[in-house]
Amino acid sequence: MAKYYIGIDLGGTFVKGGLVDERGNILYSAKVPTERELGIDKVVENISNLALSIVKETGVDKKDVAGTGMGVPGSIDSKNGVVVYSNNFGLRNYPIAEKIKERTGLPIKIANDANVAALGEAKFGSGKEYKTTVMLTLGTGVGGGIIIDGKLFEGNMSQGAELGHVVIEKNGEECSCGNKGCLEAYASATALIRDTKRAMIEHKDSLMNEVPLDKVDGKTCFDYMGKDVYAKRVVEEYIENLAIGITNFANIFRPEAIILGGGVCAQGDVLVKPLQKYVDEHVYAGIMGPNVKVITATLQNSAGTLGAAALFME
Amino acid sequence: MAKYYIGIDLGGTFVKGGLVDERGNILYSAKVPTERELGIDKVVENISNLALSIVKETGVDKKDVAGTGMGVPGSIDSKNGVVVYSNNFGLRNYPIAEKIKERTGLPIKIANDANVAALGEAKFGSGKEYKTTVMLTLGTGVGGGIIIDGKLFEGNMSQGAELGHVVIEKNGEECSCGNKGCLEAYASATALIRDTKRAMIEHKDSLMNEVPLDKVDGKTCFDYMGKDVYAKRVVEEYIENLAIGITNFANIFRPEAIILGGGVCAQGDVLVKPLQKYVDEHVYAGIMGPNVKVITATLQNSAGTLGAAALFME
Repeated sequence: MAKYYIGIDLGGTFVKGGLVDERGNILYSAKVPTERELGIDKVVENISNLALSIVKETGVDKKDVAGTGMGVPGSIDSKNGVVVYSNNFGLRNYPIAEKIKERTGLPIKIANDANVAALGEAKFGSGKEYKTTVMLTLGTGVGGGIIIDGKLFEGNMSQGAELGHVVIEKNGEECSCGNKGCLEAYASATALIRDTKRAMIEHKDSLMNEVPLDKVDGKTCFDYMGKDVYAKRVVEEYIENLAIGITNFANIFRPEAIILGGGVCAQGDVLVKPLQKYVDEHVYAGIMGPNVKVITATLQNSAGTLGAAALFME
Repeated sequence: MAKYYIGIDLGGTFVKGGLVDERGNILYSAKVPTERELGIDKVVENISNLALSIVKETGVDKKDVAGTGMGVPGSIDSKNGVVVYSNNFGLRNYPIAEKIKERTGLPIKIANDANVAALGEAKFGSGKEYKTTVMLTLGTGVGGGIIIDGKLFEGNMSQGAELGHVVIEKNGEECSCGNKGCLEAYASATALIRDTKRAMIEHKDSLMNEVPLDKVDGKTCFDYMGKDVYAKRVVEEYIENLAIGITNFANIFRPEAIILGGGVCAQGDVLVKPLQKYVDEHVYAGIMGPNVKVITATLQNSAGTLGAAALFME
């Protein structure tokens, strides 16, 4: 009695979907334009048709499909299948799960896309050996996902896991959320670029000034850290701030692993080794307790599809 | 088929215990000296005899007793019933649950005493209307407890929920744990007393100087806040720091309520109202999401017994 799962990743431009088996193999995948400019009814139709086409194209028996899982950007009430608020889709309190179920006849579960990606990574990516993990995605902002005993923890009305908005420095840097000193304001790619530019402007003798200011990205300081003391300092401060954030989550959840995602993870050991050292030295009760491993995400683009499918495997 | 539960609160001086019903009524309670100076075998004997005497004195049928729950100070591996480390009892990796079970013949579950008290408060105290709550006990240190869907969340090997050791100010005040800027270093009674004394020493004209330095306690600044600007400032800063910590937990867990325990809670609305205001204004996405209520604990001394019993009700 093989079971299959449909995983859907709802993006602003494309709806991506796949048929997934219980081991996390993507057996088939497809994508269609979201067409959000045509309104939510059309989007629902596109999602539903994609799910049905996956069943049809793969030839699986519909009753062997456990259901359709879907990651949705925005504030999602996953328990009730409602999009509480989505800026991208201009939605408020929209019962998207029910609408799709009406069209597909398949059970459906939805959750916030960042949470879904974290679930995918935890279940089938670098976290698959662990039961309890915390994921931080270091991008434009800092996204979070919490997996406890293999299940997504989302908080009341799925509004928790805002891990980027934990203050690590009272009265610190301005954050996009309106508060000051949030982890996001130190550990996002945006913050890293801000700090790189600041160092370049403040220190005209920094070799990083070879790069035009408008070409600076999250790699710049890493590229120069071997030959420029100012670049090295930017990297060290970035790592220290991220390490403080990670250690906070280690003390709160004592997870088996903390998984880092986002472009900056391409730095590999340069990033991960000093983070691991900091956590080992600063986690509460230090070596007395179990290790909290710092690892990087491995699934890349398939995390969304796999995580969405995994909503039915919890 | 009425069910009963034995709840035990293992303290350094006394072992307190009670027979609890499923509604959280303590039907009978008793205590015996811990006698830890006589060694752990004697302590185990005292605990076991207390549990058996509770059964005997109440006349309940032993098979109607679900088991013995116990809160133990120290680092506890609750899954395996082992005291990983207890400074108070001079124990390391001691299988206390197994030892007590051998003597009582009753199933047993143990957990860290702070976590157990949080469970008691969540299930039968001020948190009883809520499924997901975070408790902070503001005492000599800052203890934490996390209740998710009515169950204690403890982290890997029960080493999580160290909520007092979340850094809210990078390079801030020294904390007892060796790190800097932990919530405990701002929100514990110890920190409040430190800040009160600092204000008194720094401002000789502070009316708080009516109180001898060695008589200062966590109430001093609250007692004087109505008539002394320095006292008012100490209170305001204490509340702001605590509010930052609480808002962090609100963003991480989005619990229905955050429960505060410890002596300082006797201040009631003077403490809770500004905290609630701060959380409402600073929690991620503000009024868009569900409320996170800030409330105070109500169970006082019975939280330990009820929480211990509740280990069998999860």
